[in-house]
Amino acid sequence: MKQGPIGVFDSGIGGITVLRELLRRFPHENFIYLGDTARLPYGSKSSETVRKYSEQNMKFLAERNVKAIVVACNTASTQIFENEFNGLPVYNVITPGSRLAAQSTENNKVGVIATRATIRAGTYTKKIKELNENIQIFSAACPLFVPLAEEGWHDDPITNLIAFRYLQELKNQDVDTVVLGCTHYPLLKIAIQKVFGNFVKLIDSGISIAQEIEQDLLSKRLAINTENIAPLQICLTDSGVQFENLAIHLLENFTSNTIQFETVSVI
Amino acid sequence: MKQGPIGVFDSGIGGITVLRELLRRFPHENFIYLGDTARLPYGSKSSETVRKYSEQNMKFLAERNVKAIVVACNTASTQIFENEFNGLPVYNVITPGSRLAAQSTENNKVGVIATRATIRAGTYTKKIKELNENIQIFSAACPLFVPLAEEGWHDDPITNLIAFRYLQELKNQDVDTVVLGCTHYPLLKIAIQKVFGNFVKLIDSGISIAQEIEQDLLSKRLAINTENIAPLQICLTDSGVQFENLAIHLLENFTSNTIQFETVSVI
Repeated sequence: MKQGPIGVFDSGIGGITVLRELLRRFPHENFIYLGDTARLPYGSKSSETVRKYSEQNMKFLAERNVKAIVVACNTASTQIFENEFNGLPVYNVITPGSRLAAQSTENNKVGVIATRATIRAGTYTKKIKELNENIQIFSAACPLFVPLAEEGWHDDPITNLIAFRYLQELKNQDVDTVVLGCTHYPLLKIAIQKVFGNFVKLIDSGISIAQEIEQDLLSKRLAINTENIAPLQICLTDSGVQFENLAIHLLENFTSNTIQFETVSVI
Repeated sequence: MKQGPIGVFDSGIGGITVLRELLRRFPHENFIYLGDTARLPYGSKSSETVRKYSEQNMKFLAERNVKAIVVACNTASTQIFENEFNGLPVYNVITPGSRLAAQSTENNKVGVIATRATIRAGTYTKKIKELNENIQIFSAACPLFVPLAEEGWHDDPITNLIAFRYLQELKNQDVDTVVLGCTHYPLLKIAIQKVFGNFVKLIDSGISIAQEIEQDLLSKRLAINTENIAPLQICLTDSGVQFENLAIHLLENFTSNTIQFETVSVI
């Protein structure tokens, strides 16, 4: 087992919702975050391209001596099937999210909302069916949710209208559990919850992946950090003040640690 | 002077609004279009990254033996200041758009709407001021317009609401001319015109760049095609059925020519 920080990557800001959950749950671990902002978003790109970009990101993190890799992007998770990369454990968001959804539903009707690429890949449907074949899965692609989240219109009448348009059919299917199948979507939780009402449970990737990592730390399948807490490293493939400000804002209640930003190349 | 097709590039679908205007005006010319869909959008990325991507695109087109290059993307045009690349004439959309805006305004109040990167670069303001320093320029970034155009919500109540929010302040400035400073925006012309009303003139990059190329063809600064009409080549850095369908739809009244799609690498 390797010592070192836990590496987390996403195409952009969405994975910060996973990172903040990890920071909250594991205050004694070190983290390095990679945002592939020079090539974002992934959700509208082909599976081959997403796989290539994800492998380059994992290689970058491996070279930074991480002890594990978290694929904090659902679209990337549909293309990364392996549990390890160069001997390092790899956690994708889809496996724990599917497990939590299967545990959560009482009427066996689960909704999955995600980018067009994630829905097209059908990975959630496959994983949830493997866990319980009686569960019916209904899905909806919501392509404008990522730009809305990045625009910062998180609790906004326009976002409510768009959410209503995308999700109305899913609501009519009487689902009792909805997987937020894109790491940006927890930022729009208020608007999404408004469409479904308070009795529908929303499954957040950050929370479900944190549970899985917690089990591996407890069972010693993953080394527990024994070093001092290092500054939080955020590496971006493109420089951007807007990203930095939004990341600082999203992380402010989750870590008191220093944040160091760095522009990097992963090619 | 070189024979060959005219090369046109954009990050994605937006430049098709320029291409279709060129096809309409120059039915006897050959064209090759490059959409850098593996790395789109450019409008949220840094100037260094946009410049690097644009140079790679121009190099690709030069290797395909084009006789001229059209930068059919405003964000890329803010970073390509040269009039030539490897001996080939280069046309950016900002110079002719600025000229048309300066000619069009009667009250010397011009609005510029574009992506965040294009507004930040300030190129339109600089160019229009060079032409007439008495013109006042007001600008507004509209980051959601590109995803709305790509989602196909071109004439839609939600698009009207978003347009109203982005453009209300600009309207209050009493501008009589508005530059559509992003090649996606002509797709949302109806929504934009609704905000400003019919007496405000919208400047479309495609139309202004076609005028400039027409002058160069007439004055023989650019070779007139003497070969047969070849199929229209559309090269994409990422494969995508959605792009192909949208491109075919957008071009259907502008060319009767065969369209050949090809996935390419520009790195």
